[in-house]
Amino acid sequence: MTTPRSKVPNAARRSQSSRRAILTAAFDLAGELGYGRLSIEAIAARAGVGKQTIYRWWPSKGAVLFDAFLMLSEGPEGEAEPAALPDTGDLAADLKAVLRATLTELTDPRISEPMRALTIEVAGDPELAALYAERLDGPVREIKRRRLRVARESGQLSPDVDLDVAIDSIWGPLLNRWLLRTGPLTPEYADALVDTALRGLRPT
Amino acid sequence: MTTPRSKVPNAARRSQSSRRAILTAAFDLAGELGYGRLSIEAIAARAGVGKQTIYRWWPSKGAVLFDAFLMLSEGPEGEAEPAALPDTGDLAADLKAVLRATLTELTDPRISEPMRALTIEVAGDPELAALYAERLDGPVREIKRRRLRVARESGQLSPDVDLDVAIDSIWGPLLNRWLLRTGPLTPEYADALVDTALRGLRPT
Repeated sequence: MTTPRSKVPNAARRSQSSRRAILTAAFDLAGELGYGRLSIEAIAARAGVGKQTIYRWWPSKGAVLFDAFLMLSEGPEGEAEPAALPDTGDLAADLKAVLRATLTELTDPRISEPMRALTIEVAGDPELAALYAERLDGPVREIKRRRLRVARESGQLSPDVDLDVAIDSIWGPLLNRWLLRTGPLTPEYADALVDTALRGLRPT
Repeated sequence: MTTPRSKVPNAARRSQSSRRAILTAAFDLAGELGYGRLSIEAIAARAGVGKQTIYRWWPSKGAVLFDAFLMLSEGPEGEAEPAALPDTGDLAADLKAVLRATLTELTDPRISEPMRALTIEVAGDPELAALYAERLDGPVREIKRRRLRVARESGQLSPDVDLDVAIDSIWGPLLNRWLLRTGPLTPEYADALVDTALRGLRPT
C-alpha cells in the first residue's frame, strides 16, 4: 500500500514533468505561431494539460515564456550550465564565431520568434525587465565579461575598457538591427561589428 | 449663402485640425499612461472627437501612434523638415552632443514612453517595420549617413567604412540598453559609445 509519504516524490516528478511539457510547448508554439497568436489554450493543448494547471503556476503567457527561456539556460537537473565563450587566444576570431552563431539563431524562426516575443515583453514591462536583467541577461553578460576580462588582462583590450560598454558595443548593434529589422543579418555584418568594436577597444 | 464648393476647404481644414488633435492626444497619452493603458477611447476623449472618427482613419492605436511620430517628423505644413546633424568639423564632439540629446529624450517619459510603444509595435509587426524603415528610420538614417559621409571624405573615418555599420555601432548599443533597461543611461555612457565607435571607424 502506498503511504502518503511515498507519494510525494511521484507527485513532484509528475509536476516537474508537466512543468517541462508546458515550457517546451510555450517555446515551440511561440516559434510556430508568433507571440501574438500564442495562447494559454494552445500551450495547454500541446502540453496535454488543463488550462487551470498553467494558470496555477503562471499569471500570463509572457511569464510562461520567460520560464521557458530560464529552463533552456539551465542544465537537465535545473542547475546553471557551466557556459563560457570560446577562448582560442584569438579574441576577434572567437567573437566572430559567437556573433555568427547568434546571427544563425536570430535568422531561424524557431528560435528568433520566441526570442522576439520575450524581448517585446521585457521592453514593455519594467518588472519583467528587472527579472530578465537578474536571471537571463545577467548570467549571459557575466560570461561575456569573463572572456573580455581575460583579453583585457592579456593586453588585447585597452586597460581602461569598461566591460559593459564593450559588451554593448559588440552585441547591441546586432540585437537592435534584428529587433527593428533595419538591415540584413549577414555573417559579413557580424564580422564588421566585431572588427569595428575591437579596433575601438584595443590599446592605443 | 455658403455654396457646396466653398464648403470644401472648410471641411478639409476641420478634418486636418481633428487629425492633428487626435495625433497629439495619442502621443501625449502614450507618454502619460504607457502604451498598455492607451486606448482609442482615451484618445477620442482627449482630442474631443468621437471614437468613430478615429476608426474611420486608423485601424489600431499602433497605427495612430505611428502617424503621430510621422507628424512630429514633418513641418507644420506637412512637408519634411530639413534636418541635419551638427557639423562643427569635430566629429566626436558633434556625435556626443547628438547622443546626449537622444539620451535626454530617452530618459524623459513624455518622449520615451511613446517611443517605447512605437518600438514594441514595430518589433512585433513586420508590416509596420517595413513602413517604419521607409518613413521614419530611413529619413533619419539618411541624415546620419550624410554627416558620416562628410567625415569619411575629410579623412576622419576610414575610407572603407560601411556607413550603416557605423550608424549601428554608434546608436545601436544605446537603443538596445534603453529598450531592455540593461544598464544606466548616463552622459558618460553616451560619450564612451562615441569614443569606442569612432576609434574603431577611423583610418588605421
